[in-house]
Amino acid sequence: MIVIKIGGAEGIGLEAVCNDAAELVHAGERVVLVHGGSHETNTLAEQLGHPAQFVTSPSGHTSRRTDRRTMEIFQMACCGRINKRVVQMLQARGVNAVGLSGMDGGLWRGKRKKAIRIVEDGRTSVLRDDYTGTVDQVNAALLNRMLNIGLTPVLTPPGLSEEHEPINVDADRAGAKTAGAMRADTFVILSNVPGLLRSFPDEGSLIPELARAELDAAIELAQGRMKKKVLAAGEALDMGVGRVILADARAERPIQRALSGEGTVVS
Amino acid sequence: MIVIKIGGAEGIGLEAVCNDAAELVHAGERVVLVHGGSHETNTLAEQLGHPAQFVTSPSGHTSRRTDRRTMEIFQMACCGRINKRVVQMLQARGVNAVGLSGMDGGLWRGKRKKAIRIVEDGRTSVLRDDYTGTVDQVNAALLNRMLNIGLTPVLTPPGLSEEHEPINVDADRAGAKTAGAMRADTFVILSNVPGLLRSFPDEGSLIPELARAELDAAIELAQGRMKKKVLAAGEALDMGVGRVILADARAERPIQRALSGEGTVVS
Repeated sequence: MIVIKIGGAEGIGLEAVCNDAAELVHAGERVVLVHGGSHETNTLAEQLGHPAQFVTSPSGHTSRRTDRRTMEIFQMACCGRINKRVVQMLQARGVNAVGLSGMDGGLWRGKRKKAIRIVEDGRTSVLRDDYTGTVDQVNAALLNRMLNIGLTPVLTPPGLSEEHEPINVDADRAGAKTAGAMRADTFVILSNVPGLLRSFPDEGSLIPELARAELDAAIELAQGRMKKKVLAAGEALDMGVGRVILADARAERPIQRALSGEGTVVS
Repeated sequence: MIVIKIGGAEGIGLEAVCNDAAELVHAGERVVLVHGGSHETNTLAEQLGHPAQFVTSPSGHTSRRTDRRTMEIFQMACCGRINKRVVQMLQARGVNAVGLSGMDGGLWRGKRKKAIRIVEDGRTSVLRDDYTGTVDQVNAALLNRMLNIGLTPVLTPPGLSEEHEPINVDADRAGAKTAGAMRADTFVILSNVPGLLRSFPDEGSLIPELARAELDAAIELAQGRMKKKVLAAGEALDMGVGRVILADARAERPIQRALSGEGTVVS
């Protein structure tokens, strides 16, 4: 059982990822794919005259401002555009893919952050109309049923809040929760860097292996979105996943390379 | 087993439709919902600077021009926006809804029309880059499996072509094929008129009942999009569906009213 998080950033070779995923499925492996949609959401939001905004927490953490309209745009980009593109590519490779958001079948249930403290121009305020949250529960039974009948799930945010609202959940961390709930052997997180770098952006400084105990220190080395991926790696291992591989999606055979140990292997 | 087609036009009370659908599900009925997204697609296409275009066939039939970009917009509107809105409303009513396009799990497979003859300013030409098609096969086994484990499918175009391309399929007719493949007792087609009118737009001229044999003549009375609904009614009946009800989605309790015989009942 392998869970593969496909990066949403530019430079990701979606065709190559789908080639590898299809090969695994045809070899009898149980595969669940997960993707986000930051880049597509930004583009669509700009085109629709509601450009992406980012907010900063008092602790310095930056995240997307997800008001009602942004959530609509996020759903269109993730569920409408990217998800169906991946499903189409897999279907074209003989994989019976099923694209699902975390709302469908209550796959990713979690809590909406009803009040978000933000800092702007040195002043702290509270946002109450934001649709951001975290995944607490994964409907692994439904995913297993789908895998049992030969379907390959392709999962995307949003998740579903306790009040049945869509919530913008981080796809890396939702992928980690999914891998954990499915008791996956391996969780592969693909992005447009070779893995965790000791001296970002020097790709020669790739850290090839890490133990769980080293992750908390390693998170200090992570830049930008890699921080979430390192955090997700820890969450997946803590839930019993065998190994997490932070790997490069830009190369040919990205999944095969990751599974053969290229990237940063955390176990 | 009931298949309900929700109209995509303005004036449809989606909340009322979901209230009724939830009541049926909670009473133990097997329900599949189907929707399209013409209106939302037009709005989004306009906002994105790629406004809807319509083409006319030599026989005078008008349909949406679905080039590559329009298909992307269509997927965002149908799969991203409307589908997730319906899923959210049903989840909020305690129904474990799963939103799926016809591409997912190969639910709606069909043929893409690779060459479409159109008439423009009196001249006939052929379009070869259009993604329009019809549903030939419904994966009823997958829908039944979902119903068996307590899920309520919410289906939307596009379908999947033999070449694994997304195809813009008419949701009324896809709903009819679904009802037929599922051997539904009833196929309800909700729209923003009371049913088939003898003298459109006089709502007092509603035809309350029709036999299958009368449908071919009745199609002459149908105006605009109602023609497809009458065609869909015939297709569903020919596949063994017990009755088709063309009913009004604008009222409170739209599904309950339809099931009690309000609208045009075809059997």
